[in-house]
Amino acid sequence: MDSIVNIPVCSNTRRSPSPELLALLESRFAERFSTSKSVLLQHGTDESIYPPRPPDAVVYVRSTEEAAFVVRACARERVPVIGFGVGSSVEGHLLAVAGGVCVDFSQMNKVLAIRPGDLTATVEAGVTRGQLNAALQGTGFFFSVDPGADASIGGMVATAASGTNTVRYGTMRDNLVSLTVVTADAEVVRTASRARKSSAGYNLTQLYCGSEGTLGLITEVTVRLHPHPETYAAAVVHFPSVRAVVDCVIEAIQMGVPLARAELLDALTIRAVNAHSRTTLGEHPTLFLEFGGSQAQIDEQAGIVREIASGHGGGAFQWAKRPEERSRLWTPRHHAYFACLQLKAGCRSLSTDACVPLSALAQCIEETQADIAEHGLLVPVLGHVGDGNFHCLVLVDPGNAAQNDAAEAFSHRLVQRALRHGGTSTGEHGVGLHKMRYLVEEHGEHTVALMRAVKKALDPHDIFNPGKVVALSQG
Amino acid sequence: MDSIVNIPVCSNTRRSPSPELLALLESRFAERFSTSKSVLLQHGTDESIYPPRPPDAVVYVRSTEEAAFVVRACARERVPVIGFGVGSSVEGHLLAVAGGVCVDFSQMNKVLAIRPGDLTATVEAGVTRGQLNAALQGTGFFFSVDPGADASIGGMVATAASGTNTVRYGTMRDNLVSLTVVTADAEVVRTASRARKSSAGYNLTQLYCGSEGTLGLITEVTVRLHPHPETYAAAVVHFPSVRAVVDCVIEAIQMGVPLARAELLDALTIRAVNAHSRTTLGEHPTLFLEFGGSQAQIDEQAGIVREIASGHGGGAFQWAKRPEERSRLWTPRHHAYFACLQLKAGCRSLSTDACVPLSALAQCIEETQADIAEHGLLVPVLGHVGDGNFHCLVLVDPGNAAQNDAAEAFSHRLVQRALRHGGTSTGEHGVGLHKMRYLVEEHGEHTVALMRAVKKALDPHDIFNPGKVVALSQG
Repeated sequence: MDSIVNIPVCSNTRRSPSPELLALLESRFAERFSTSKSVLLQHGTDESIYPPRPPDAVVYVRSTEEAAFVVRACARERVPVIGFGVGSSVEGHLLAVAGGVCVDFSQMNKVLAIRPGDLTATVEAGVTRGQLNAALQGTGFFFSVDPGADASIGGMVATAASGTNTVRYGTMRDNLVSLTVVTADAEVVRTASRARKSSAGYNLTQLYCGSEGTLGLITEVTVRLHPHPETYAAAVVHFPSVRAVVDCVIEAIQMGVPLARAELLDALTIRAVNAHSRTTLGEHPTLFLEFGGSQAQIDEQAGIVREIASGHGGGAFQWAKRPEERSRLWTPRHHAYFACLQLKAGCRSLSTDACVPLSALAQCIEETQADIAEHGLLVPVLGHVGDGNFHCLVLVDPGNAAQNDAAEAFSHRLVQRALRHGGTSTGEHGVGLHKMRYLVEEHGEHTVALMRAVKKALDPHDIFNPGKVVALSQG
Repeated sequence: MDSIVNIPVCSNTRRSPSPELLALLESRFAERFSTSKSVLLQHGTDESIYPPRPPDAVVYVRSTEEAAFVVRACARERVPVIGFGVGSSVEGHLLAVAGGVCVDFSQMNKVLAIRPGDLTATVEAGVTRGQLNAALQGTGFFFSVDPGADASIGGMVATAASGTNTVRYGTMRDNLVSLTVVTADAEVVRTASRARKSSAGYNLTQLYCGSEGTLGLITEVTVRLHPHPETYAAAVVHFPSVRAVVDCVIEAIQMGVPLARAELLDALTIRAVNAHSRTTLGEHPTLFLEFGGSQAQIDEQAGIVREIASGHGGGAFQWAKRPEERSRLWTPRHHAYFACLQLKAGCRSLSTDACVPLSALAQCIEETQADIAEHGLLVPVLGHVGDGNFHCLVLVDPGNAAQNDAAEAFSHRLVQRALRHGGTSTGEHGVGLHKMRYLVEEHGEHTVALMRAVKKALDPHDIFNPGKVVALSQG
């Protein structure tokens, strides 16, 4: 296995733009073209633990046509094109391992249409989920997918993102209607109509969703909206074990309780949060719950869950109903990532995101915690219990090779464990560079060969984010 | 435009199996191999209005390995392979326009696993939705997708089927976890793990879903299950207009009411049903509703919908709560298709399935009804209102070329209208032969070129159900 500080590719040779191509882009984009060192560095860095790999140039596009212009210009020289939202991806997706031109979507940030009558909205790819929800204020509707970071919606499509309320409202996949994409021929295509469902040909929308920029540049996105529930209530409850938390949530889902959120924080995460937020929560496995609906619905749901929780040894429910109280009660969950980083001065986190069938989740987390103990690691665990998805934040000093290697070895054992339990190496982060080595193990060589055939069909010259997901030029 | 009684293809030349291939299949499958005229005819016929196009042979497979055996044998000679479930598709999907071997899945009818802890089940592709739901009795869970016919689940995946309770539980796409598929190389692949979500590579599951047997043979399917609501209630209510029905349903959805079903029957459909079932329903646009949940939830939902309905001129609600009463109240909807066929002796139905954004549905149906009146056609209209999807049953004497042409012309105008409203030519039936001509109009030529590139990548010799969706060998 490679050391974590090495990028686990690539016989990708650098395919840098010619001076003529750079001049063309500069003349077209003027101050929206950059080769400044700091700009390149920023665009060759993501939230992964990989060292930066800057592109050769960055272009800030303002329209689909501009994105197509860049693709057309780069395709002539087979220069890589890498889409960039806010840079919050965590698996090395954005690193320019073969050089190339980074297309920054931050200036494609217009909400193009909000259609309450259709329960949809269309946005430019650079609009963040926060920007869309701000634009939706007062409409009665919201965009549900919440991966934590205020990611761009284009980026969320690219990684098939999900998050804390996926248990109720689904992943990015479930909330997609249609995409506008620039293809390898620099053509602009729309993948589907605005109908809520369709059987009209192959589902390109879902093919681009999760393609991590390797099949085309996503420039516009039509998403589903959901009506706000009449009201919400939040609750926090301690349990004697992680298994008890998981069993409680599964039983609630089996009973059809439409939990709005159901998040596990393990005892170490609670300890981190207490230190960070000066709270005094008991350092036990803890379930953070959110309910949505009418007051009567919430009361009914809460009654059912309270009974289930009590059957699994859950403690007293702490409740919050008013928005500011709910927000305060959930602060530990919302701040968990940063709180955990402060468990160890100067550390970064290798964040895993294995996802297993619900029935295997408790066992998989228990085995993982045994592994953590056995190897003397410092690893808070938190999970989207209703999805079978959990995160281990492996805290490492980025300059310490031994720690990095130990973190990577842990991640490797975790993926093996998830696959043994019938799960996936990545529930929501994506493959990027980091999970490529597991694709064959997870899917089998013939399935990965199909993926590679799809890549070759839609990007025959390997210009879109090369070296990621299924690298064509890999040795 | 072609006459409806002609098949709107194909420069597909017939690629019939050699005597050696037939002998090989016969020796392998013995009595499960057939070239009898009646068997071929049955397998070259679907519920479309196309005349039959029999395959050259039929094989009844009992395992994925047997399906792979057939594909391997046929691929050598580039002989077409056409999957067959129960033959309920409606757009000519199953017609052997280039000859070939039909793979009948009716003997792959085992429910392989039911996993209440995961809320999933795995079935062989020939299992029908009725068979799966029978196997689920007593578990507390059900499989939600209900396209009317007791279709095979493999076939439902192939067409991305949906139906009456999609408004609450989603389409086949939303209820898929993973597939086992035989590829063009006769390899057996699994498209995904059993995790509820994954970002591990391109989404082949959704690519095969809706591929209509043109990219591979689907042999096993893992689906999501849902817990039965505590109880149900059904209601029927008349409205002064189709628009009032549609507006009522949209408003309920905007309010977040989780309607279990919401079906429109227009006045003509009600007339057909009255004649067929000897009921005395008022011949008005009518909404059939189903609510699910606890009694308190149902009461709350019903209260909201009653108020909304009254705001749109809805009449009194007829209610039914006990299972047999509910079933009786919904009989008109369940029998609508056959009741409508009896409006005209000896007729068949060309069944359209346009789907438009919710906000355009009322307008699109009104324009369609004006078209029906203008052309003096006999066309009951019924709709899955919450999906923006509606069916026109164009009743024709199959032997009458003028009627068939008029029906096809109507369907053509309807598709144009749906596309003008931002919708799709097919919400749930699929493309088959019948909708191929609209793909470019709906998606644009570059999008269809991508679909064709995907077909070429995954089925380079065009052996899987050739001449459908995006025909490679079309002139």
